[in-house]
Amino acid sequence: MATEFFAGLDLGGSFLKYAIGTADGVILKRDKKPSRADEAGDKVFQVIFDAIRELEKEAKRRNGDLKGIGLGSPGAIDFERGRLIGTTPNIANWANADIRGTVEKEVSIPVWVDNDANIMALAESRQGAARGFQNVICATLGTGIGGGILIGGEIYRGSHYAGSEIGHMMIVHDGLPCNCGGRGCFEKYASAPAMVRHYISKMMESGKPVPDNISTFTVFQNAEKGEPEANEAIDKTLGYLGTGFASLINIFNPEILVVGGGVADAGEDFIARIQHAIEERAMKPALRGLKVAKAQLGNDAGFVGGINLAAEMFHKAN
Amino acid sequence: MATEFFAGLDLGGSFLKYAIGTADGVILKRDKKPSRADEAGDKVFQVIFDAIRELEKEAKRRNGDLKGIGLGSPGAIDFERGRLIGTTPNIANWANADIRGTVEKEVSIPVWVDNDANIMALAESRQGAARGFQNVICATLGTGIGGGILIGGEIYRGSHYAGSEIGHMMIVHDGLPCNCGGRGCFEKYASAPAMVRHYISKMMESGKPVPDNISTFTVFQNAEKGEPEANEAIDKTLGYLGTGFASLINIFNPEILVVGGGVADAGEDFIARIQHAIEERAMKPALRGLKVAKAQLGNDAGFVGGINLAAEMFHKAN
Repeated sequence: MATEFFAGLDLGGSFLKYAIGTADGVILKRDKKPSRADEAGDKVFQVIFDAIRELEKEAKRRNGDLKGIGLGSPGAIDFERGRLIGTTPNIANWANADIRGTVEKEVSIPVWVDNDANIMALAESRQGAARGFQNVICATLGTGIGGGILIGGEIYRGSHYAGSEIGHMMIVHDGLPCNCGGRGCFEKYASAPAMVRHYISKMMESGKPVPDNISTFTVFQNAEKGEPEANEAIDKTLGYLGTGFASLINIFNPEILVVGGGVADAGEDFIARIQHAIEERAMKPALRGLKVAKAQLGNDAGFVGGINLAAEMFHKAN
Repeated sequence: MATEFFAGLDLGGSFLKYAIGTADGVILKRDKKPSRADEAGDKVFQVIFDAIRELEKEAKRRNGDLKGIGLGSPGAIDFERGRLIGTTPNIANWANADIRGTVEKEVSIPVWVDNDANIMALAESRQGAARGFQNVICATLGTGIGGGILIGGEIYRGSHYAGSEIGHMMIVHDGLPCNCGGRGCFEKYASAPAMVRHYISKMMESGKPVPDNISTFTVFQNAEKGEPEANEAIDKTLGYLGTGFASLINIFNPEILVVGGGVADAGEDFIARIQHAIEERAMKPALRGLKVAKAQLGNDAGFVGGINLAAEMFHKAN
């Protein structure tokens, strides 16, 4: 019998990352291409087809078969149908895209499509920080706060594929308006731009000049140098992270909270400080046995999770 | 074959409510006794034994067998072991009580024990407002805000039986301190005492005398008479309810939110206003197809859910 291989594709606004691997998670080849998401027509599909053909060749070269494809896309994804629901801001001409239908028609290999945050959570639970855990919350701290939730080891997709929007839990009643239509959302206070905003306002309060091009990296750097405003901005962000994550822990009582994304990359120490902020606020019974861990797969989580998804769905069906 | 009957017991600080019924939910006999929860020793267990013996007699009288008992208790319940984890404020001498072990030893009938809010959510999903739905949030608005969550039609108990504490989702960052150890909890702003507090502060702002013994009932009554402060207090509470429930809906994308408890009994109109407050704040994709409904089983939910639980667990095992 030919070896079974699976493909993972991680579609973003700038790049399509893709890889081929085995059901037990060994990656054999990985690459990326510009996703051409801002171009007219169905260029994105052409990029996807090219990537799959490349991976199919790799499978043949290794005397194996590409048995299934797992594709992560931004936006709300109807997992049963493999389609985008509505639109997603960073990929043009993608409204209600019939992703599975279009790709399966071209390549004749089974395709499963899911929201990218769900797929990243799956990857962390199968091969990353949450390996072996059943009830998992994965949070990505970046421009926003993304979330993926596993319950009983399975991705929780909500009733209409619209759940897990942990960044839009409202932690400041009647707070800052958010693009989502709500006010006071978690991500308005605890994402990377929020930390930068806290820093700028601390600098202005102190009457200090606000430097250009501030990122969370700058804030962490200045904090290490002992700048009080940078430390205060980090503490303020940690307070909001504590409120948001403690609430999720009171609701879900997960075994593990995995924190990834740019802000989390500030290091192990930042994760320990998040854990401390949670412990100050969450209910004691919900904290029992709780692990707070840094995401392990970084930018690979998308294609690793795609391979995990394809392998699991293929073996369920066959 | 003798008919199969199941018992549901709903243990509270004041009363033990109990009933016997069939797996398909027909209640044959129901009653209640003082739970003697404030007395020394193991009086609560004696009350439970008496109730079960009464129900056993009823089963025999109807030529049937009592096949299983479902018991709802306040507090965190280890469902696998049928024990209380730690203590619960309204039942004395109940710390770490081995509820299942003690009852099964006495009556030789299988017993399943669960948290009372979980059991109420089960009842609403099997025979109440959430019948036929898979992903359900049940909220009880009373002295606090209790919650029960069903995912895929099954009670979600958290990793260590400590989840579903929706009343302790923090909706006001660094807000009022809560007994739970957190600050700004949902129930500090949207429970019955919170509505009364909002009313009192509105009356004081207007320089009006604050009446004695105010309840949410008084507030609703005064609002109907056109008193502006009462209406403002209700609107304020609805704002907080909107923030809390919209957050839960963004996270879970449930099919239905069931609202029960004293505050919800203010009538159908109040439920419609809660729904409106949610629609103003939640994300559009998460609102698609969402039902917001009043709990249907009222004070019966505890023993109805106990019967449902016992019947389902018995049939899983046999």
